[in-house]
Amino acid sequence: MDIERAHTPGYRESTWIDLLDLITAIGAGVWIPMKLGLLAFPLDFDIVVDFVFMVFAGFCAAYALCEYWRAVKRGVVVDRSVLWTRVLTDAAVALPLVTVAGLAGTYTEPFWCVKLLAIRHVVRFPQILSRLGMPHPALGRLFSLVIVVPLLVHWAATGWIMLDGGAETADLRLRYLHSVYWAITTLATVGYGDITPKTGPQMAYACGIMVVGVGFFGFVLGNVASLLARLDAAKVQHEEARDRVETFMRHHRVPHELRQRVRDYFSYLWETRWGYDGAAVLADLPPNLRADLSLSVNHGIIEKVPLLNGASPELIRELALELKPRIVVPGEEVFRHGVPGAEMYFILNGDVEIVTPDGQTLARLHGGDFFGEMALLTNKPRVATARAVGYCCLFALQRETFKSAVGRYPDFEAKVSAMARSRASGDTQAGQGQG
Amino acid sequence: MDIERAHTPGYRESTWIDLLDLITAIGAGVWIPMKLGLLAFPLDFDIVVDFVFMVFAGFCAAYALCEYWRAVKRGVVVDRSVLWTRVLTDAAVALPLVTVAGLAGTYTEPFWCVKLLAIRHVVRFPQILSRLGMPHPALGRLFSLVIVVPLLVHWAATGWIMLDGGAETADLRLRYLHSVYWAITTLATVGYGDITPKTGPQMAYACGIMVVGVGFFGFVLGNVASLLARLDAAKVQHEEARDRVETFMRHHRVPHELRQRVRDYFSYLWETRWGYDGAAVLADLPPNLRADLSLSVNHGIIEKVPLLNGASPELIRELALELKPRIVVPGEEVFRHGVPGAEMYFILNGDVEIVTPDGQTLARLHGGDFFGEMALLTNKPRVATARAVGYCCLFALQRETFKSAVGRYPDFEAKVSAMARSRASGDTQAGQGQG
Amino acid sequence: MDIERAHTPGYRESTWIDLLDLITAIGAGVWIPMKLGLLAFPLDFDIVVDFVFMVFAGFCAAYALCEYWRAVKRGVVVDRSVLWTRVLTDAAVALPLVTVAGLAGTYTEPFWCVKLLAIRHVVRFPQILSRLGMPHPALGRLFSLVIVVPLLVHWAATGWIMLDGGAETADLRLRYLHSVYWAITTLATVGYGDITPKTGPQMAYACGIMVVGVGFFGFVLGNVASLLARLDAAKVQHEEARDRVETFMRHHRVPHELRQRVRDYFSYLWETRWGYDGAAVLADLPPNLRADLSLSVNHGIIEKVPLLNGASPELIRELALELKPRIVVPGEEVFRHGVPGAEMYFILNGDVEIVTPDGQTLARLHGGDFFGEMALLTNKPRVATARAVGYCCLFALQRETFKSAVGRYPDFEAKVSAMARSRASGDTQAGQGQG
Amino acid sequence: MDIERAHTPGYRESTWIDLLDLITAIGAGVWIPMKLGLLAFPLDFDIVVDFVFMVFAGFCAAYALCEYWRAVKRGVVVDRSVLWTRVLTDAAVALPLVTVAGLAGTYTEPFWCVKLLAIRHVVRFPQILSRLGMPHPALGRLFSLVIVVPLLVHWAATGWIMLDGGAETADLRLRYLHSVYWAITTLATVGYGDITPKTGPQMAYACGIMVVGVGFFGFVLGNVASLLARLDAAKVQHEEARDRVETFMRHHRVPHELRQRVRDYFSYLWETRWGYDGAAVLADLPPNLRADLSLSVNHGIIEKVPLLNGASPELIRELALELKPRIVVPGEEVFRHGVPGAEMYFILNGDVEIVTPDGQTLARLHGGDFFGEMALLTNKPRVATARAVGYCCLFALQRETFKSAVGRYPDFEAKVSAMARSRASGDTQAGQGQG
Repeated sequence: MDIERAHTPGYRESTWIDLLDLITAIGAGVWIPMKLGLLAFPLDFDIVVDFVFMVFAGFCAAYALCEYWRAVKRGVVVDRSVLWTRVLTDAAVALPLVTVAGLAGTYTEPFWCVKLLAIRHVVRFPQILSRLGMPHPALGRLFSLVIVVPLLVHWAATGWIMLDGGAETADLRLRYLHSVYWAITTLATVGYGDITPKTGPQMAYACGIMVVGVGFFGFVLGNVASLLARLDAAKVQHEEARDRVETFMRHHRVPHELRQRVRDYFSYLWETRWGYDGAAVLADLPPNLRADLSLSVNHGIIEKVPLLNGASPELIRELALELKPRIVVPGEEVFRHGVPGAEMYFILNGDVEIVTPDGQTLARLHGGDFFGEMALLTNKPRVATARAVGYCCLFALQRETFKSAVGRYPDFEAKVSAMARSRASGDTQAGQGQG
Repeated sequence: MDIERAHTPGYRESTWIDLLDLITAIGAGVWIPMKLGLLAFPLDFDIVVDFVFMVFAGFCAAYALCEYWRAVKRGVVVDRSVLWTRVLTDAAVALPLVTVAGLAGTYTEPFWCVKLLAIRHVVRFPQILSRLGMPHPALGRLFSLVIVVPLLVHWAATGWIMLDGGAETADLRLRYLHSVYWAITTLATVGYGDITPKTGPQMAYACGIMVVGVGFFGFVLGNVASLLARLDAAKVQHEEARDRVETFMRHHRVPHELRQRVRDYFSYLWETRWGYDGAAVLADLPPNLRADLSLSVNHGIIEKVPLLNGASPELIRELALELKPRIVVPGEEVFRHGVPGAEMYFILNGDVEIVTPDGQTLARLHGGDFFGEMALLTNKPRVATARAVGYCCLFALQRETFKSAVGRYPDFEAKVSAMARSRASGDTQAGQGQG
Repeated sequence: MDIERAHTPGYRESTWIDLLDLITAIGAGVWIPMKLGLLAFPLDFDIVVDFVFMVFAGFCAAYALCEYWRAVKRGVVVDRSVLWTRVLTDAAVALPLVTVAGLAGTYTEPFWCVKLLAIRHVVRFPQILSRLGMPHPALGRLFSLVIVVPLLVHWAATGWIMLDGGAETADLRLRYLHSVYWAITTLATVGYGDITPKTGPQMAYACGIMVVGVGFFGFVLGNVASLLARLDAAKVQHEEARDRVETFMRHHRVPHELRQRVRDYFSYLWETRWGYDGAAVLADLPPNLRADLSLSVNHGIIEKVPLLNGASPELIRELALELKPRIVVPGEEVFRHGVPGAEMYFILNGDVEIVTPDGQTLARLHGGDFFGEMALLTNKPRVATARAVGYCCLFALQRETFKSAVGRYPDFEAKVSAMARSRASGDTQAGQGQG
Repeated sequence: MDIERAHTPGYRESTWIDLLDLITAIGAGVWIPMKLGLLAFPLDFDIVVDFVFMVFAGFCAAYALCEYWRAVKRGVVVDRSVLWTRVLTDAAVALPLVTVAGLAGTYTEPFWCVKLLAIRHVVRFPQILSRLGMPHPALGRLFSLVIVVPLLVHWAATGWIMLDGGAETADLRLRYLHSVYWAITTLATVGYGDITPKTGPQMAYACGIMVVGVGFFGFVLGNVASLLARLDAAKVQHEEARDRVETFMRHHRVPHELRQRVRDYFSYLWETRWGYDGAAVLADLPPNLRADLSLSVNHGIIEKVPLLNGASPELIRELALELKPRIVVPGEEVFRHGVPGAEMYFILNGDVEIVTPDGQTLARLHGGDFFGEMALLTNKPRVATARAVGYCCLFALQRETFKSAVGRYPDFEAKVSAMARSRASGDTQAGQGQG
């Protein structure tokens, strides 16, 4: 599989580069504003930090350059300008200009500002986090929002310190705390008013923070809320379907006993995890992946059905794509005697009774059993009625699918025929139905 | 029906366990933070509370264990890890560790913290409330949000007390009120500023409350708003349809008289409760439930039509699924003479005139009457025109449905034929139309 | 049409009752809290107000009773319990209990509270306003939200006065202003902190206002925002279509010249008001209303086409439903010579050139002209190409529609045939095309 | 193309008029409230400003008049009342009433207020900005919201100054800053409380600002947030598709290895920019524009395929519309030997192996190659299997499309046939597949 991986742009080997980007961005976001706001570190310390940036950003720049070169060589349709921008900005961050300026005795601040370029990786956080194996893409976005909020507060607080805010305390740590407290009070629009801007520049700064920051906070909150609401999309979809039916029932004043039966049905649907319809989801995927996903999802039923044990993997793969799930409510008839049938059924769980036209119960089937298999072999009408005892999860297999499978897998055809013959000859075993 | 209920996982008998969960969660949420914040209760009191927790949570743990065991035994596809987590946490809450620690003379606080695990039932509130018979699932979610807000305020307030907040008053009750007041002022972002954090820890605590709490409040408010907006989904749907048509009419400058007619139509639709289309809703349900719901909704028309009185329940059930509702506006023709017809109509309410080609009114029909029944028996064109006098709600019965019903219910066929013959022979009774 | 109106439940004659409900509700909402909060009016004044309520609410109750009786008599499917509730509450408001209690010398406050029931009409405001002729249902909802906000502020302010809030000023008017100011400061979460609760009850009241009121304010603001956003649904739909195409073009890096052409197309669409597709909207309406709306919308084209002038109203009504709008961009070919055609075209505006296969321009047609009519009469291929010069709005008429119209309206057939013959005979007039 | 442009209403030549409208509106919005609030400018200055307004608004009025006249003359379906309103309001703004009043020695304020009419162009900002060439319509709306916020703050601040707010400082600039600071504090609901209304009018003004302004701010923030969220619609759509699949996989507990493969597929889709489906977008456009867009988007593949180099532009245009994109995942079979084929494939990028039934690799194809061309010429089954090595982007060409193209472009047919013959004769070149 090495060849395939090599052909996938931006593949797994870049994971540690992603991590480096992440750390560099957060480091730059935290350190540089503090450096600019407090100005209280000796030169030696600056040089050490500069060196760390050089190493981290240098690696990233080098890697991006390699990727660019590989993309050019292989003619991949990746967006090259993006890679090019990354090479340039990472190189700018990596250059040890602060050390040079510091040793030369000039101001280092402008060169720190250049390093702020590293923060632009922030916009790639969701992508980086999802590549680092975040279980859910929405979680990645949520986490990157959660990282951005403290960064924003930090920047607002250091800016406040730069304008002599929090000067009421001499202790640097307390001053930082006071500034953070002011920043949060303002950004969250609480505005206690115990720390307020006094000078003109402070007022102007506060105005800017209020307009930009409040908007940003609203945006972040709105996103966090909608992300949280979407985290469990399966549940949301289930509840919407339920609300629709409830509204319908209330609107038409359906009696309470019937409402309760409908609610039971939805509870059952949710607890057995069958409520979430995958068909629409799978339609987006290429056939290969779709088959693998179907196989993975329907594996449970295939393991439980003795008839399928020992079948060839190709057959199982084919059936997994074709089995149609169906839920029957207590007392519902799966099929009725005398009606021509075109499907056989596998029981995932729940009980089904096979009843003769005169009301005699022939058999009671459980999870793992199958019934109605005669319909696949002959075109004759059903000879008995199948009725659900409680809630049942069934999988239906269409005759057409069966016929095409039978042609290619003669073993399976023989097995089903033998089973059908043995039942038809009157030998009704427990846990086996009549077709 | 016992068998069916036994096969439904998580069925009704667990209602009182749900209630126990609810009470335990709220009790733990209210009591433990207060205990930790105020520390002003004697040991005896603690032991009593501990005992109550032991009883409540013990029952819950035992029940969850039983359910787990039953699920394992019956091979139900319920999510077992969820049950297992419940058994463990409920058992941890039930253990009387506080009593042991109190009698041993050591700190009881850590053991109270363990009991906070009971609060995790909070996430199950919507589900519990809907099982306890909450009339609308959205109401359940609304109610659980409404429970969570005071809990959050309570926690914020007790935390504030722990950090010596509200120390300006000696009276414990007043101090709690002050703290709650501070918490709400902060969470709702009002921030009067009459009570503000003074010490470093208080400031840090206030920062945390502002960031987390404000986001949470926004989330709750957003949810409450969207829940309220969705409570009456039928109305929302009706208003959207109306807005669409209004926008269309304004965009194309439709004259006011015509706009008013369209508005009247929508008012009529809403007041007769016919505006909400159930077809899409019912499509989600299995056939059995769908038939019961249709029967329940269309029961009114069936009771009002004398022709159907005394019909067999099976026939009525079948017709309820097949009757198609139709609204006609004043002056609209239901059918026109000379055109071949394939439907008969039942009038739910409103008046319909049967008019001959030369403009003579043959009959005026009211709610409960039917007309156009000749179309079901013969293939001849309509011999008269049926025109609505005011707004009318009709139900249409297709010939195909009728034919299949007639085959199985010969009584009904005879009744309709007799009625048609008597009308066709010129004997036009009031309240009876011409086919 | 009197009969029809009488059959329409809740028809126009109730307009003044709606107005009465509106005034009573607002009056009760404004007056009673002020009365309860300030307690500064003499008994005579109370009796006058009580009398006004008696008259207003009495009328409403009597009307609702009549409506109820009529609904019962005619067997209309209107929701009777709603009417019944209205009768009871209006009667409770109408009873002059305040006068009785005042003259008897006991407290009148409880009886004022009973009159607060009149406020429940608030929930019917959107409906009332739309019946009073509000041009847009969303405007009605907007207006009722705008009414509710001052009511809420008023209630919060009078409650504050009841708890001795605003007691720093003796002047009653200033005290009310201070209370309103406090209420708005709190509800809008501004919370200056210049007026803050001091006593326990005030604090508790402020807490309640903050939790309930802030949620309500958020709800109202959210609704106002979404109502404003939806006010011009046609524009929203247009912009969404445009954004989709812009996103597509940016994603695929389409060159700027082509982007500009697409933008021009959308501008043209919007400025000619053709962008809003009515088909989906009209599908909700019954056939009668749909025909009237189509006729009204397409009236412009029918007036401009000389061919249709003098046609019978039935024909015009039929054509209005069948004309299919089509926009062609500059240089696009409406049809090409040699291809069999099945449509004729009417030009609403813009210019179309008729070009022979060898590139010679036969004619240049303008708004009001038609072309391609030969396709309706014979099945032969087009003998020329029709190409748009600038943007053009056309209406296409299908051959099938034409054939059916021709059968019923022989005058029209003769007119079109004559026109086609005169053109085919080589007599090409300016402003007339070749079929 | 001049004729076409002349026929497009509101075309490009009005760009500088749009700019004039923009400047006039912003100028009036900034200047007039300041003038009314501060009253501190000499008459000469007023006359100069009045003159500027006269020139700017005069030009706009004259232009709108011309447009109106042209629309009337050409009978365009543009909304004339809109143009008429523009003429009148621009003329009112242009009249030098302030100069007249100033020279006559009376109050100039009422005449400044008339000039506020110019602000109404604000509602046209999004449209103006999009015509001025804003790259994205959403950006235009965003920018106009961003312009409106400072205007609103400015108005609130000048109103505050008019009511003697900010009177604590004598310096006019500082007073303006204080007022702006108060306005932002209030509008953003921060409400520090260091500057609060003292007098009655100030309180009433603050109440108004709070109710209206807070609502407006919420509206603007909500819009900005949703605009930002929609800016990259392609990304949003991609993430939603991804979230759906992730939810499905988590819900059904799909194993991690398979989840990772699905994630890789989505990453590939996004990085190659193939994820955004244009079909729905293009369906809104007229055929002419649709063809041009398709050609522009698929240009890359056409340039890379040697077979198509030198083909006539008409053929390329036709093929661009018909090529169907398809992504294959590593190991997936594009087609299988023995199955009849109806498509040929062009490789955009990625590698495809042609394998014989006995597993021998015949060829390995790269970007720019094509394969499966035999299927277009004959109806025989595939003689080999084509399997993707890594991820591949292919374009499929249907036999029907090819046949119709071949009829009209014999050169192309000859080229493909020659290629197919040379391959079929066993001469398998590198980079060429077997059909």
